[in-house]
Amino acid sequence: MKTIVYLLKKLEEMGITDFFGLPGDYNFNIVSQIEKNPNLNWIGCTNELNAGYASDGYAREKGFGALVTTYGVGELSAINAIAGSFAENVPVIHIVGTPPLDAFKSEKILHHSFQGADSKVYMKMHEAVTSASAFLNKDGAKLEIDRVLKTFYKERKPVYLAIPSDIAVMEISDREIDYDWVSDSENLETAVKLISDKINKAFKPAILADSLINRFGAKKEFDTFLEQASVPAVNFLTGAGIIDANYKNFAGNFLSTYGNLTANSLMKETDCLISVGVINGDLNSYGAKLPYKINSHIAIYGTYSYIDGIKYDNIKMSDVLIGVSKNLRNKKSAIKVEDIGYESMPPAREALSSNYIYSRLQSFIKEGDIIIAETGLISHGIFKMKLPSNTKIHSQLIWCSIGWATASALGVCIANPNARVVLVTGDGAHQISAMEIGNMHRYGVTPLILVINNDGYGIERLLFGNEKAKFNDIMQMDYSKFVRSFKGEVWSTCVNTEDDFDKALRVTQIMDKLCYIEAVTNKSDIPDTANCLFYLNDSEKFVSKSEQSDEQLSVSGINNNYETSVHASIKEFEG
Amino acid sequence: MKTIVYLLKKLEEMGITDFFGLPGDYNFNIVSQIEKNPNLNWIGCTNELNAGYASDGYAREKGFGALVTTYGVGELSAINAIAGSFAENVPVIHIVGTPPLDAFKSEKILHHSFQGADSKVYMKMHEAVTSASAFLNKDGAKLEIDRVLKTFYKERKPVYLAIPSDIAVMEISDREIDYDWVSDSENLETAVKLISDKINKAFKPAILADSLINRFGAKKEFDTFLEQASVPAVNFLTGAGIIDANYKNFAGNFLSTYGNLTANSLMKETDCLISVGVINGDLNSYGAKLPYKINSHIAIYGTYSYIDGIKYDNIKMSDVLIGVSKNLRNKKSAIKVEDIGYESMPPAREALSSNYIYSRLQSFIKEGDIIIAETGLISHGIFKMKLPSNTKIHSQLIWCSIGWATASALGVCIANPNARVVLVTGDGAHQISAMEIGNMHRYGVTPLILVINNDGYGIERLLFGNEKAKFNDIMQMDYSKFVRSFKGEVWSTCVNTEDDFDKALRVTQIMDKLCYIEAVTNKSDIPDTANCLFYLNDSEKFVSKSEQSDEQLSVSGINNNYETSVHASIKEFEG
Repeated sequence: MKTIVYLLKKLEEMGITDFFGLPGDYNFNIVSQIEKNPNLNWIGCTNELNAGYASDGYAREKGFGALVTTYGVGELSAINAIAGSFAENVPVIHIVGTPPLDAFKSEKILHHSFQGADSKVYMKMHEAVTSASAFLNKDGAKLEIDRVLKTFYKERKPVYLAIPSDIAVMEISDREIDYDWVSDSENLETAVKLISDKINKAFKPAILADSLINRFGAKKEFDTFLEQASVPAVNFLTGAGIIDANYKNFAGNFLSTYGNLTANSLMKETDCLISVGVINGDLNSYGAKLPYKINSHIAIYGTYSYIDGIKYDNIKMSDVLIGVSKNLRNKKSAIKVEDIGYESMPPAREALSSNYIYSRLQSFIKEGDIIIAETGLISHGIFKMKLPSNTKIHSQLIWCSIGWATASALGVCIANPNARVVLVTGDGAHQISAMEIGNMHRYGVTPLILVINNDGYGIERLLFGNEKAKFNDIMQMDYSKFVRSFKGEVWSTCVNTEDDFDKALRVTQIMDKLCYIEAVTNKSDIPDTANCLFYLNDSEKFVSKSEQSDEQLSVSGINNNYETSVHASIKEFEG
Repeated sequence: MKTIVYLLKKLEEMGITDFFGLPGDYNFNIVSQIEKNPNLNWIGCTNELNAGYASDGYAREKGFGALVTTYGVGELSAINAIAGSFAENVPVIHIVGTPPLDAFKSEKILHHSFQGADSKVYMKMHEAVTSASAFLNKDGAKLEIDRVLKTFYKERKPVYLAIPSDIAVMEISDREIDYDWVSDSENLETAVKLISDKINKAFKPAILADSLINRFGAKKEFDTFLEQASVPAVNFLTGAGIIDANYKNFAGNFLSTYGNLTANSLMKETDCLISVGVINGDLNSYGAKLPYKINSHIAIYGTYSYIDGIKYDNIKMSDVLIGVSKNLRNKKSAIKVEDIGYESMPPAREALSSNYIYSRLQSFIKEGDIIIAETGLISHGIFKMKLPSNTKIHSQLIWCSIGWATASALGVCIANPNARVVLVTGDGAHQISAMEIGNMHRYGVTPLILVINNDGYGIERLLFGNEKAKFNDIMQMDYSKFVRSFKGEVWSTCVNTEDDFDKALRVTQIMDKLCYIEAVTNKSDIPDTANCLFYLNDSEKFVSKSEQSDEQLSVSGINNNYETSVHASIKEFEG
């Protein structure tokens, strides 16, 4: 079997049937083999960064994703997407086609390379953002693929594979090995017993759930655990949607002190915190300090668990959850959860604002929908929403690379062609990857794209405080005209009142094509939940205290144009 | 003086008055200081890769360039542009705003970062593509800036500077040091004597000039040297335009065996090759083997020279050229140069093809113009052109990252607002960075943009050979509609006959706004000079010999649709 045929076979077994990327002069033997295989699809993107984001979205939705680029130029264009997948534990394999091995030995200095540099230099740059990597050679190509894919399967983080064009079509053994792994039985037994005992003895146990539950394919086991435990449960933000809205003790998303105070109290008052699949991050905990000392409680991760600061390695999240579920004495606790989410508001003939947008979106979202929420102000508006049962939110709240959402939506649509995908993004971020709309048409997917246009980098304006700073302005364009410049059917509109926004959403429900709404708001409009971002001013210290008298460098982070309620919140947080 | 004020002052002294990039939550103290300084301009781009390309274009035109991004997400999005600048010896400083130092010490896990990773991880990724880097700290910030900028000034390659937000506004000493360096006098004396003697003794000396002459600011000294030497001189391709078209012994661009055979003979027959500022690369020598064994002749580089394989380090290109110029006995040689360039053709009412496009462009280009030639088929068409005196071509023929040209053109226009800038790109490459048209409007520059639309990745089709492969198709768009979706005045048209192309170029001469021509050609149309690319099939071996019977994987690199002349050329080359 040829190297590339073997690799594609193993990836297909993991559920990867769609490969994102761009062709390049060194990856033809990879891309043409994908095109040749009737089970697989090639999804060409406009640039490699977008292709990386798309494969990331695909992996979030389908379990694993794959990106194919060419040596040097292609792979380095995509490396920020791989870094994002690494930060958020999203399993994307980066497959890079390189010149044939002989070419590296010859005197000829190849294009896409530096004078006399090590041929593996780009792989080394990837080592910081991948959990395994290999540059295939004549010997051991199969062993290397197996090693890298085993880690891919276990760690659910990006991996990297450089395949010289001659090695791609070299014959290798097709003896298959299983990539699955088995929990360490001793560690598992101990951890399960300790965790079960702690929960059973606790007075106020509480669960904190997050996105790694999906990444490690442990959703079913988590649901069983939740039912058995029957204790209050809260989501961190990248895990929004993991705890089903119908779960009787669901206490909503953790918004720290900026909303949903029930969840905040639960986290503070519990005598037994069980975190499952959590990614520790400043924005994931809504801009606050984490409500725990990292790993000092019961913390169940994909391949290990911590109990009171002690690590139990090589145990699967699913095995831990199954074991603990069996041992639990049902607590039958019930909590009174304050009303979460936005209040419903009737549309008025008034200028559109975030308050209305997110409230209306909340009523618009229906069971089975998938929301892609862009980093920045958008995600803060989205995370306050109360979702129906069985809906998902994908966001990139750890890495926070603007532009991720639009391209990622392409990947999510390809991964789940039957769901309604709602992309919510901002004008600044959207401009970065908006060209992928052309590829959405090309591959026949029809998301609803909602661009909230506040005329610039809204979140940066909020953080910098001085709205007059020109560097937060962006180039001007007519989004409706833009989206119609791609070949494909689209329904698009631009709205700036609540009334028209409401109507536009209704129209999308009867359209069976890509829908695109530009929703124009005031330049200083922010979702009220974005107040939490003021904490960043402190941690980012973009102004030293001594600078406060200097007009332009000194910014307190508080723009006088913002609402009084914002000031009140900051004071509350500081106090 | 504040750290950032000192840095900007020193960069301004190097001629950098325009800074490309995107604002981000950790670089406000950098960007706002640029905006505050009346001598400096902030040029916001749509994404970081484009900003990197734009600063690269700026540096090619103006000497030095600067890119400003934010920690992690921003800097990694731009790293491929920095790699390109590194491969092509273009001095771009990458300035990255990072969280304040204290934030790294706290327990809080910051966004834009990995769990528990080294805070300098992104700088380390940059080390492979920069010649100096520093992560500023409380102590030694000024010394570090001086160290990095000294290398920047000397090596003319990218450097990297991470500036924590608190360090940016920290007070440092403003005692200035000079970044210039002095040639090693002993090495200089020896090298000048050896080089002069060799040239004076030679029967058929010949000069090969390339882009590093401009990068190291030695154009004036080179011109004097050329006049004094008065021997035949040839350009490598990235150096097109360096030898003025009026130079009496100018033998044109080196096109190996694919054109301009005078130049090829000169390189083969010389008994004393003097290469000045050459970048050794497979495409720079037009897909052929280099016409010399690297550094075995007289090879004058920016900071060192080689004579017969021996290196003389720490001597400036300009000093060597000045020294040698004084010693030369004028050879007064004259060569008969065959007619270079395209034949002039009258426009016909016929389908547009590359043959006509480049011939017509040749007559359109006038003294003082700057051409930006995209990688791929475009540059091969462009390099056969005969240029008027005092015109420049910028290309990225070493790194070859498609998409570079459109964004780079923004930088070139900003660097040289008085020149007519003609961007020539292809549809596939253009889609990658086309959003920068919005920023061209925003900053009031008006290049002529020529998009040659052959409906896909033409060069990849040529190399892969099977035109039916779908992976070389791209998403479909209406370029005229697209370019009108940005706010700004534009004259645009789509042409597909020679006649209309001719007229469109004439129209642009009377327009004083951004002009945009989509020139549609046949899918398999290629400039005849692109024949040289077939050599890549061999070196890239995307098909092993044993594969030749397999229909889809096996491609001989020769598409039956291409002209007979192409086959002839390949045979000639193989033979």
